[in-house]
Amino acid sequence: MSRSPGRKQENHKISRELFVLTYGALVAQLCKDYEKDEDVNACLDRMGYNIGIRLIDDFLARSAVKKCRSYSETADMIAQVAFKMYLGVTPSVSCSSATGNEFSLILDKNPLVDFVEELPAERASLCYCNLLCGVIRGALEMVHLAAQVTFLQDRLKGDAVTEIGITFLRKPEDRKHKRN
Amino acid sequence: MSRSPGRKQENHKISRELFVLTYGALVAQLCKDYEKDEDVNACLDRMGYNIGIRLIDDFLARSAVKKCRSYSETADMIAQVAFKMYLGVTPSVSCSSATGNEFSLILDKNPLVDFVEELPAERASLCYCNLLCGVIRGALEMVHLAAQVTFLQDRLKGDAVTEIGITFLRKPEDRKHKRN
Repeated sequence: MSRSPGRKQENHKISRELFVLTYGALVAQLCKDYEKDEDVNACLDRMGYNIGIRLIDDFLARSAVKKCRSYSETADMIAQVAFKMYLGVTPSVSCSSATGNEFSLILDKNPLVDFVEELPAERASLCYCNLLCGVIRGALEMVHLAAQVTFLQDRLKGDAVTEIGITFLRKPEDRKHKRN
Repeated sequence: MSRSPGRKQENHKISRELFVLTYGALVAQLCKDYEKDEDVNACLDRMGYNIGIRLIDDFLARSAVKKCRSYSETADMIAQVAFKMYLGVTPSVSCSSATGNEFSLILDKNPLVDFVEELPAERASLCYCNLLCGVIRGALEMVHLAAQVTFLQDRLKGDAVTEIGITFLRKPEDRKHKRN
């Protein structure tokens, strides 16, 4: 009585809604586990980091991108290739420092908060999507780029857009060169 | 945290890998939170239920399916439309009872365990993907179908396939009719 359909080429795409709701369940669980928003944020970042260091292989294999030659190219790659591939959206990128190592990814619409209207009053410091920062940080580390990644603006907190700040940190060699 | 209104036509697809790794982080967190596998399983089922009761609206809106007229049609709908839409795979369906209310969804490959090799020895009773059972149960309940949904086989536990059992429970009216 088995009705088995023809198995086709594997599809790497899934519906976003299931992800968004599952992510919501994860955040809700962490909010149960940790009283302080800061601890939830740190945990999401740590989880994201662990995801990022694994996801990078998948990204490099499937995107077949070439090595980036500048921080600016890297930021564009994250926005235009990685975000598009993993979240189906493309943030705009702006360089926010004269030194050329600080960038902002600006999301008019954050796909992770489709089912979230606003943060509960008692969770005002929660960075709901902090997992994303960790993912970016972890993935960058695996291609030997140290970076700080944090939310600078968040529509869930009443800001006009959602903005993720990426600050590429100088590599040890850079610092050494500077000292010499 | 309620559903935001006015969601427009947009790209609803995301990459499965991010979902799979995020789901893994969720299960790992629950394994930290609960010592007993049974408690983790129950929590995943409960989370899934809460997802299912919200996801059903999205499913009905996007699939534009008609009302199913039998349990068999409903099981096919879950496998061929819902699994395809949300997870990008189509399980085969078999009816496993003469009474026509027990079905199995059989997955040759479970997309949720792409990055999982095997369960740790101390977590032998963990139903890693139990969230899915909850999602199905919750979604069915919202279309007035009570069901028990459990894993009957699991490749993570050494079985040849992954099998989700759905037992549709008699509706209250059915029981009343029977009594009369």
